[in-house]
Amino acid sequence: KIKDDSLVDPYVQKLQLNLGQIEKAGYEHFMLKEIYEQPSAIKDTYRGRMLADRGIIRMAGVDDNLEKFLNAKRIIVVACGTSWHAGLVSEYIFEDLARIPFEVEYASEFRYRNPVINKDDVVIAISQSGETADTMAAIKLAKENGAFVFGVCNVVGSSISRETHAGAYTHAGPEIGVASTKAFTTQITILSLMALKLGKAKGSISNSDYHMYLNEMEQIPSKIEKALQSNDHIMEVAAVYKNAKNCLYLGRGYNFPVALEGALKLKEISYIHAEGYPAAEMKHGPIALIDEHMPVVVIATKKGHYEKVVSNIQEIKSRKGKIIAVVTEGDTSVKNMADHVIEVPETLEALTPLLTTIPLQLFSYHIAVMLGKNVDQPRNLAKSVTVE
Amino acid sequence: KIKDDSLVDPYVQKLQLNLGQIEKAGYEHFMLKEIYEQPSAIKDTYRGRMLADRGIIRMAGVDDNLEKFLNAKRIIVVACGTSWHAGLVSEYIFEDLARIPFEVEYASEFRYRNPVINKDDVVIAISQSGETADTMAAIKLAKENGAFVFGVCNVVGSSISRETHAGAYTHAGPEIGVASTKAFTTQITILSLMALKLGKAKGSISNSDYHMYLNEMEQIPSKIEKALQSNDHIMEVAAVYKNAKNCLYLGRGYNFPVALEGALKLKEISYIHAEGYPAAEMKHGPIALIDEHMPVVVIATKKGHYEKVVSNIQEIKSRKGKIIAVVTEGDTSVKNMADHVIEVPETLEALTPLLTTIPLQLFSYHIAVMLGKNVDQPRNLAKSVTVE
Repeated sequence: KIKDDSLVDPYVQKLQLNLGQIEKAGYEHFMLKEIYEQPSAIKDTYRGRMLADRGIIRMAGVDDNLEKFLNAKRIIVVACGTSWHAGLVSEYIFEDLARIPFEVEYASEFRYRNPVINKDDVVIAISQSGETADTMAAIKLAKENGAFVFGVCNVVGSSISRETHAGAYTHAGPEIGVASTKAFTTQITILSLMALKLGKAKGSISNSDYHMYLNEMEQIPSKIEKALQSNDHIMEVAAVYKNAKNCLYLGRGYNFPVALEGALKLKEISYIHAEGYPAAEMKHGPIALIDEHMPVVVIATKKGHYEKVVSNIQEIKSRKGKIIAVVTEGDTSVKNMADHVIEVPETLEALTPLLTTIPLQLFSYHIAVMLGKNVDQPRNLAKSVTVE
Repeated sequence: KIKDDSLVDPYVQKLQLNLGQIEKAGYEHFMLKEIYEQPSAIKDTYRGRMLADRGIIRMAGVDDNLEKFLNAKRIIVVACGTSWHAGLVSEYIFEDLARIPFEVEYASEFRYRNPVINKDDVVIAISQSGETADTMAAIKLAKENGAFVFGVCNVVGSSISRETHAGAYTHAGPEIGVASTKAFTTQITILSLMALKLGKAKGSISNSDYHMYLNEMEQIPSKIEKALQSNDHIMEVAAVYKNAKNCLYLGRGYNFPVALEGALKLKEISYIHAEGYPAAEMKHGPIALIDEHMPVVVIATKKGHYEKVVSNIQEIKSRKGKIIAVVTEGDTSVKNMADHVIEVPETLEALTPLLTTIPLQLFSYHIAVMLGKNVDQPRNLAKSVTVE
């Protein structure tokens, strides 16, 4: 704080940027560029942290506070929008691999509620910009109640990264398109590394599984490259549905939050009313909406309760809904039922969200472009929501 | 189990029914009858359990297992559809009054995930029919992991009421309309009584507050009667929006789950794509959908972060959205901004869902009737979802 008029030494923080990062580099929109940057962004996220061949995950913010994480009675994520979806994905991997009870809260609801927060709770705040007002307020509330607060942000030096006790940057590089893409997949990457590290430290994951996950994580960037090769096919599918007024997105397990995120992308940039649901909830109401005018995007990769999802697809087909299915490479049974299939490479179930997200991003992107919408700056939306 | 062909004594369970309960009693549809039955259904739920003047809440299932509830590290609700929404409402009242960490899970996601369940967790399973397949499976999983499982069902003798360790019936009487109405409000009533009882036993709620809540709960049936008197006005509003293709429902805090439930009702019986959101999440995406064709139902009762909701309404109006607001009797500031207001009587914030739900049920009902839909048996839906 400046208390008198004496000279102070200014603190200059040098941004780690090159010009290409804030230019479109030949892409028509920042969003498309950022979608295509995901293989390198994810590499940047795990570079220097994960040494797959040596079985090491190093994250200073976690290493320095390992006891806090290992003794946590609960981990609570506070976040908004796309970051909230990343939190939901990580609930599955944390409970599965690290066996820590995990809860995901809308920051806006958490802060105004009278939530039970204890000293042995760990709160993870997720925000691309690190400036989200509701998330900041939730952090303050958690700190007042004695919880340890860990930040997952993209923007270095942001308010949330300064307000939290420790954290990890996603290192995705500047995200300029308002609809978040690479921020989402790098958030999932960081959170997955954390779950793996804690699972290893707790002994809740076997050594061989741990190494298997690390090796597979290292393959993710090249598998995303492969998923991106479906771009032309996805553009054709987008052309068929560009005039849809509504759309449903369904997934189960790890891919239920991906369905929510896919729907949010379509809402944000094409202004089509899309809604995500856990597939099994369809029968409890939303299936009444299904008729020949309703496209339904279903994430039906193998392993993720595949047979259950297949039976959901049959229910929708028998009500004349149109199915766009995201499937594992080489899948044949869904191909016979769906109106369109989009393939992604096979991977471990826990890592499928990093692949299944890609075609949903491209699908929204192409529809918005075909409808002539302002993809990078959709109406009514701001890149970082600094008001409450 | 029958092991040989010897005679066994049949067990006859006499249903506590009278003919009026399964007839329409002059109403055009079961759903409308059941909406109007809510004052008496809620009285039936608390009769013999709550003695407001003596400050007593008696519930055998809770009394007999009081230590389990008081020592619970966490309460986890498993449910589907409308029952899941009742669970979400009760999260607020349990955390607020009983100060027990509370989580609400889709039964279908919980059962297929690898959730962390401990012996000191209490699981509450909510199901009107008591036969919901996914909820049954979640109960089995919780029991295998040593949790104490409490059932909240309406149908006496149902599978879930038999599979749980203890429970409480809602006593709402037979619900025949497929879209659940009185089951929802009586579930909230039971769960609120539980939270109050536990808050009293833990000392997390003051004696005077406890008595205030009990006295107010006793007033709820007559306040619902009053809310039902807006029926003609609600019908007029419904006539304005009956041809809407989409609709958003917003609420905060206790009324965020009511927004989800209101949207589900409209989906179920009118086949209009309605979606509920916590109001603060609008800025993180859905506000892009707002234009002059998008009706937005906002629950803006006093106390429930009223000023924040008012600022959400201003954001929507400035993007030309149409506002239908559910407000507290005598409200003037929202009235000046909204296109339509529907009043409900004033009550304690924690009990507002029991009142704000009523106009949303009537709104959906009238739109569905005007569109000529089969209100009591909507397409594609079954009353109890006994398949997975």
